[in-house]
Amino acid sequence: MGRLSIRRPVVRIGPGGAQRTLDTLAAEEPLELRVDGKPLSVTMRTPGHDVELAHGFLLTEGVLGSAADIATARYCDSFDDDGRNTYNVLDVGLAPGVQPPDASIERNFYTTSSCGVCGKASLDAVRLKTRFSPAADPVTVTPALLSALPDRLRAAQKLFDTTGGLHAAGLFTADGELLVAREDVGRHNAVDKVLGWALLDGRVPAAGTVLMVSGRASFELVQKAVMAGVPVLSAVSAPSSLAVELAEDAGVTLVGFLRGETMNVYAGAGRVDVT
Amino acid sequence: MGRLSIRRPVVRIGPGGAQRTLDTLAAEEPLELRVDGKPLSVTMRTPGHDVELAHGFLLTEGVLGSAADIATARYCDSFDDDGRNTYNVLDVGLAPGVQPPDASIERNFYTTSSCGVCGKASLDAVRLKTRFSPAADPVTVTPALLSALPDRLRAAQKLFDTTGGLHAAGLFTADGELLVAREDVGRHNAVDKVLGWALLDGRVPAAGTVLMVSGRASFELVQKAVMAGVPVLSAVSAPSSLAVELAEDAGVTLVGFLRGETMNVYAGAGRVDVT
Repeated sequence: MGRLSIRRPVVRIGPGGAQRTLDTLAAEEPLELRVDGKPLSVTMRTPGHDVELAHGFLLTEGVLGSAADIATARYCDSFDDDGRNTYNVLDVGLAPGVQPPDASIERNFYTTSSCGVCGKASLDAVRLKTRFSPAADPVTVTPALLSALPDRLRAAQKLFDTTGGLHAAGLFTADGELLVAREDVGRHNAVDKVLGWALLDGRVPAAGTVLMVSGRASFELVQKAVMAGVPVLSAVSAPSSLAVELAEDAGVTLVGFLRGETMNVYAGAGRVDVT
Repeated sequence: MGRLSIRRPVVRIGPGGAQRTLDTLAAEEPLELRVDGKPLSVTMRTPGHDVELAHGFLLTEGVLGSAADIATARYCDSFDDDGRNTYNVLDVGLAPGVQPPDASIERNFYTTSSCGVCGKASLDAVRLKTRFSPAADPVTVTPALLSALPDRLRAAQKLFDTTGGLHAAGLFTADGELLVAREDVGRHNAVDKVLGWALLDGRVPAAGTVLMVSGRASFELVQKAVMAGVPVLSAVSAPSSLAVELAEDAGVTLVGFLRGETMNVYAGAGRVDVT
């Protein structure tokens, strides 16, 4: 298994001058994901929780509906120049009857749409792919509970304290209990690791949960929430236009700019109890 | 052309209660890039500067060496349900003799490497692909100049002020003059738009320049700097381990945690004049 962080020499410059010191960096390594031996994707990720990452990625791409759809997951024999296994190639074997993913560029888009590439076609594609609907989830949360989540996520970020350079995602119950938190150099990867954990733990569709992310909320992060049946997505920073449109379309509550006691609810405000 | 930002209703919650208001969101729409009519990639981006985005993407993927390698760039006729052109499909025609990109997953990796997917193979792949070497660039910069860049980039961020949710990249001369700044919901896109602008302006290889980014420095951002011949990459936040390794390998000066008068120089410290 690769290391999560790496110490490197650095020249630190400040008002008092320059000095040589050591700094701790978040590790970044490529992960090649294969399905039944066939390469599907290469992503730059922080090593660790790779099996969760693969489950979460395949779940949110619409390949998996339950953990039983994967029969095997193992690292391939890929060796570096020193003969050590890199643990950077993960091969997933699908269970009998599970349709392998389409690796073409068009896989996420537009095959049933008349309008070419556009935001609406992107929403349609998610609607066609998802197996779960967060729209009917009756869960409610309070502003006070949401306000507490960033600090709880931050407290669970082991690597951030030493590297200052990682995205984080956390899955919470509607009571604010942290179920799992994951960090990664890539924001999508952090979410995939969390949702892969949920799948492996038998918690998908993730009814009654809140997914909290450390950065912004893009279309793709809302898509991942929808695909895992998460009813509430909460972000420290801004959402994009298409993220809000998808959240509305799919019945996901989308909270942004969650800072201190203030927040903006961009979609699904009915789940936020402001009485 | 799509709009850069979109007004949406939002419920703003604070200590004083909840109120309905309007918020401005950064626009996010898919862009399908085709080369000679063949789909190459779909990226979620903020509309605008799409021709620059395509040039920058193809430059940093190793397809282009100069602006003359592209003969034509035009939006395809892709229409939404209301019959309006989405301006979300851009077809690039390569000049005669320019080899089209390999769209396979393996294109960025490992074809000449014995070690499968690993960090070192990623460095090797960049070394094989790049047409320019920033290593010999004699440019130097002072800490005072670097310290001034984040505010200058921030001042050029028109959309950030209204949306609070965009990544930015800026290309500066070694004297601190801003050549171009671009914003996007995707950090890679912001850099591609800047480097595509530089290619179209005859400034690639971008000798003597500093590329400033608003967030973290990943492997892929350093790769983009290398591919465009940028000698200095400066980031507000942390670099990853592989970003530092690539910067060292390729002779790029990598500055991180650039905040106020303090900064860390992770590679190529010889270009930072601390006397």
